[in-house]
Parts: sequence; structure tokens; C-alpha cells
Amino acid sequence: MIEGVENILKEKGKLIEEEIEKVVPKKNGIPNLHDAIWYHMGTGGKRIRPVLAIMTCEALNGDVKKVMPFAASCEILHNWLLVHDDIEDGDTVRRDKPAVWVKYGADHGINIGDYMSEKVYEMVINSKIDTEVKLRLIEEIVETCSKTAEGQTYEMNFRKNSNPTEKDYMQMIIGKTAWYLTLPMIGGVIVAGKPELVNKIKEFGMKVGPAFQMVDDLLDLTKGKGRGRIGSDIREGKRSMMAVHCFSKCGSGDKKSLMAILDKGRKETTDSDVEFVKNLFERTGSLNYAKSRAKELVEESKKITSTMPKDLQKILDQFADYLIERDT
Amino acid sequence: MIEGVENILKEKGKLIEEEIEKVVPKKNGIPNLHDAIWYHMGTGGKRIRPVLAIMTCEALNGDVKKVMPFAASCEILHNWLLVHDDIEDGDTVRRDKPAVWVKYGADHGINIGDYMSEKVYEMVINSKIDTEVKLRLIEEIVETCSKTAEGQTYEMNFRKNSNPTEKDYMQMIIGKTAWYLTLPMIGGVIVAGKPELVNKIKEFGMKVGPAFQMVDDLLDLTKGKGRGRIGSDIREGKRSMMAVHCFSKCGSGDKKSLMAILDKGRKETTDSDVEFVKNLFERTGSLNYAKSRAKELVEESKKITSTMPKDLQKILDQFADYLIERDT
Repeated sequence: MIEGVENILKEKGKLIEEEIEKVVPKKNGIPNLHDAIWYHMGTGGKRIRPVLAIMTCEALNGDVKKVMPFAASCEILHNWLLVHDDIEDGDTVRRDKPAVWVKYGADHGINIGDYMSEKVYEMVINSKIDTEVKLRLIEEIVETCSKTAEGQTYEMNFRKNSNPTEKDYMQMIIGKTAWYLTLPMIGGVIVAGKPELVNKIKEFGMKVGPAFQMVDDLLDLTKGKGRGRIGSDIREGKRSMMAVHCFSKCGSGDKKSLMAILDKGRKETTDSDVEFVKNLFERTGSLNYAKSRAKELVEESKKITSTMPKDLQKILDQFADYLIERDT
Repeated sequence: MIEGVENILKEKGKLIEEEIEKVVPKKNGIPNLHDAIWYHMGTGGKRIRPVLAIMTCEALNGDVKKVMPFAASCEILHNWLLVHDDIEDGDTVRRDKPAVWVKYGADHGINIGDYMSEKVYEMVINSKIDTEVKLRLIEEIVETCSKTAEGQTYEMNFRKNSNPTEKDYMQMIIGKTAWYLTLPMIGGVIVAGKPELVNKIKEFGMKVGPAFQMVDDLLDLTKGKGRGRIGSDIREGKRSMMAVHCFSKCGSGDKKSLMAILDKGRKETTDSDVEFVKNLFERTGSLNYAKSRAKELVEESKKITSTMPKDLQKILDQFADYLIERDT
């Protein structure tokens, strides 16, 4: 999979950027808007989503040219969510650079995200596909963005939950992560003329999406997810899969300590707090639990793909494996 | 016009609310999301936009039932812009009540606005109109929201402009205000099956939109626009029509004083600062200038409506008169 992704990126990376440039000028744009979007886009990112849309469409013999604007719009969508997320969560660093709101101000940051969210639709509207297909894509984008915002609410509410369960966690994470990781594949099958596969793709996404997030949570504790240091989630008070598992396993003394650290302001959380929590997660087997839950979900996802056309099954299975094996 | 608006509101107000309820549940919703939206919607507002969509459609013998979801979506659109604007501008009071971000937190505030912005599209998608018409409406919404975000950038940039001209002001205000005041009328003519009128409606909107804003700026200095006190714009450092005119008329001493007050933090601006600026605007004739510019624009708008179907012309002219005569 990783090889396949890299090949597509080499081949299509420039085209994706050109699609975005059609709606967000790189030169002579409006200061504090267009430049800020390109600043953010330039901080990196894996471009997984456009590649996923292209690969899904290709696996069903769809016309890749037709899916390009939608594929690129998924990248804009992903990025506007990050722009707003960073403000909402108070994250000052994104991909090892100052977050866009830190560089341009929170006022511009909110507005920049709003603008990007409209460009998602503009790209689809401008694409050379039938009206019915356009509207179908727009419907799916609307549903995805609604579910994602609901998931974001769950997450923010969840941070104040002193007795979080795995069920709560799954509800939150499906909303916040799974939907918009699934969208590129949904669009890919629609543009390829196979809308009958949409429901199966959604079932698949509701498995690999949470697996993806669990791996992300693990990486935050081991590699730092490009935020300059490890443990951002702990500083933020996030109820991650590990935190939820740990709550159910640790004694009341540890639970109290864990809660106290999660509930501290992000600036008050020290490096030794992060170290303490990491050790606690190890002691309660929570790191391993998150890893094994992610693997289980990927196994379950393969039952779903086994009923799909073979070429599609192949790339989705590779994608699922990649999601839990990746280290960035 | 005011009578007409009130009649439509009496007749259709409940239907507008019911349309919104289809996508934002009033009961058993997600805490900090659905309740927050209804809190915000419940703070009031004139519901001018849905009425405008209905009146425009009716004037062309369009089917009012078909335009209702779009009409209601214009109200959601207006309100999500306010939710984000209040955060961006640091306004703590909206329609004499705590702004939604003050009550629910800025993190939820941003997310609530994002969610509302998707509901705009959801309402149009769910409406019982042809696919082509839906897509046409969505196109116009996308253009409007893009232009509005661009206008918002101009306004934020404009606040740091020490030499603002009327041309700068018009560019900013057309982006920030005129587009989304025009959208309901654009949708009204599209649903009525007269898309050939869209360009004329846009020309009309680009006249009455700035007039509307100039009256709004005047009301902020005389009535307070539901923000608990007069002069919010001055505290915010807004370059209003009056401020721009005053800059071009006053001496260098007054200019320095005006600039110093506009550039103060909103908390540092005192009531006597506001009083000073108001008196300065009176001395330089800036209040009267804004009033007369608004009137001129309305007169120009009537040249445009004179080439439209008679019934449409009548209600648009009444609307334009209402905009500059209103006192709230």
C-alpha cells in the first residue's frame, strides 16, 4: 500500500495541487486568506484522502480525470477541519510549524476555515461530471461534515466526562474521524458509477476509521504527531482509547491522579505528568489494548471487503493494513 | 413593506421554524450543539432573509412551498455567520443576550457555526425541487459564502488600514454584507423558474446591500443594534462609512485622536471615547453623509428594478425603502 500511495502521489500530487489552485489562487490573492491557506497546505500532510479517492475510483475502472476535483476537495476538507480543530483545541503547532491561527490570528483562522469549507463544494460544482453525480457527492459531503461536527461536540463534551466508557469513545471517534476518512472512498465509488457500493464502503469506514484514530492516539504518545513533542492529547485532556481503557483497569488512587492530569490546563501539564500517564498506560496494559483493538477492527473490516469486487477489496485491505502499520 | 413583512412572518414564521427543526432537533439533541443553535436562534432577529426569498418567489408566481426550505436555509446561513462573527470580533452580546460563544465556549462556538453552515446545504438538498434547481441554488450559496468570507477578510485587514478610502470601504462591504442579503432574492427567482433574472438581482443587491450596512452602522451609534450599548463598531475599531468619510474631512489632530480611539482594545475604549467620536462624526458631517449615500444607493437600485417584472419591482422597491427607513 505505502508503495502504491507513493506512486500515485508522484504521479498525481501535482494535479491535486493544481485542482486546489483553481479555487485558491497562489499568487495575487487576498492577504491573510489565500496566502494563509497555502501556508497551511504547505506544512505537509500525507495527502492520504485524495489518493484514496483516486485508488477507489481506479479499482472500479472509473475515470480518474473525473474524480480529481473531488479527490482534491477531500484534501481541502481535511485541512479546514484541522484549521478549526487547532483553534478549538488550543493547539499552537501543526506539523512542526506554527498553527495557522497562531500565525494569522484566531479571527482570521476561523474565517480561513469557513472559506476553505466552501471551496470543497466549489471544486465539486466545477468538476466535469453529470449533475446527478455532483449532487450525490454534495449530499455525501454534507452528511460527512455534519457527522464530523457532531463528533467534535461529543469529543468536547467527553473531555468533561469523568466516567468514560468504550461505547462513548466509539460514538465520539466514529463521528469525529471515521466519517471524513470514509468520504474519499464514498466519492470514489460514486464517480466510478457504482453508488450501490456506498453502504458497504460506509460499513468499512466505520471499522477502519476508529482503528486509524487509535493508532493516531498511540503515535501521539510515541512520536508526537508533528506537534513538537509527545503527549499533546494528555495535555489537552483527551479521553483517548488508552485513557478510557486505563480508567476501567486502574485503582482509585491512579484514577484520581490520571483525572487530575487530564483536567489540568494544557500549560500546567508538565513533561513528568505526561511520563506518569504513559507509564500508567503501560502498567494497565492500555497501550497494548489500543493496539489490539485497532487490529481487531481491521480484521473485521476485511470481512466487509470480502464481499466487494476483487480489485477494490485488494486496495482497501492494503489501506487498512497500512493504517495500523504506519509510524507517522 | 414593513406591513408586508409582518404579514408574511405571521403566516409563515412557524413554517420557517419547522423547516429548521427538520435538520436541527429541538428536543433530545446533542448537548452543546443543538440546544446552542436554538439558544442562538431564539435570541431574535428580524427573519428578513426568509421573508425576502418568499416574497421574491411569490412576486413571480412561484410555488411558495417549494421555496420554503431554501428560505429557511437563508436564516440559518445568516445566523451561522453571526455566530462566527461574534467570536472573530470579540462581541460578547448579541441581541441583548450573551453571544453563543460566551455561553457555550469559543470551542463549541466555532463548531456550532460549522455545523450550521452544513445544515444550509442539507435543507436545500432535502427540498422537493428538481435536481438542476437544487444544484443551481447550491452554486449560488457557495458563491455567496465565498464572497462573504472574502469580505470578512477585507474587513479584518481594513481595521489595520490607517488611510481607508470609500472605494476600499465599498469593496469590503459588498463582500461582507451585500452578497448574503442578496442570496434570498437570487434563490427566490431561481425557484420561481426565472434564472434569467439572477444577474439583475445581483446588481440590485450590490446597491441595497451597502445601503443596508450604512444604516446598520448609523443605528450602532444611535440605538446600539442589540449589543447592550451604542458604539460597538467604534470599540471594535471598525472602519465604518462614517469613519472613512470623517478621515477624509477632519484635520490632522482629530484624525490622530480618531485613529487612537479606533485602534484601542475594545475594553480600553471608554464611553467618553465613543461620545467624542460621535460628536466628531457630527462635526464633519459624516453621519449625514452616510445617510445620504444610503439614499443615493437606494435611488440607483430603483433604476435597476425598473427593468424587472412589475410585481417584483414593487416589492423590491418597498424592501429598499424599508432598509433605509428602519430603526432596528
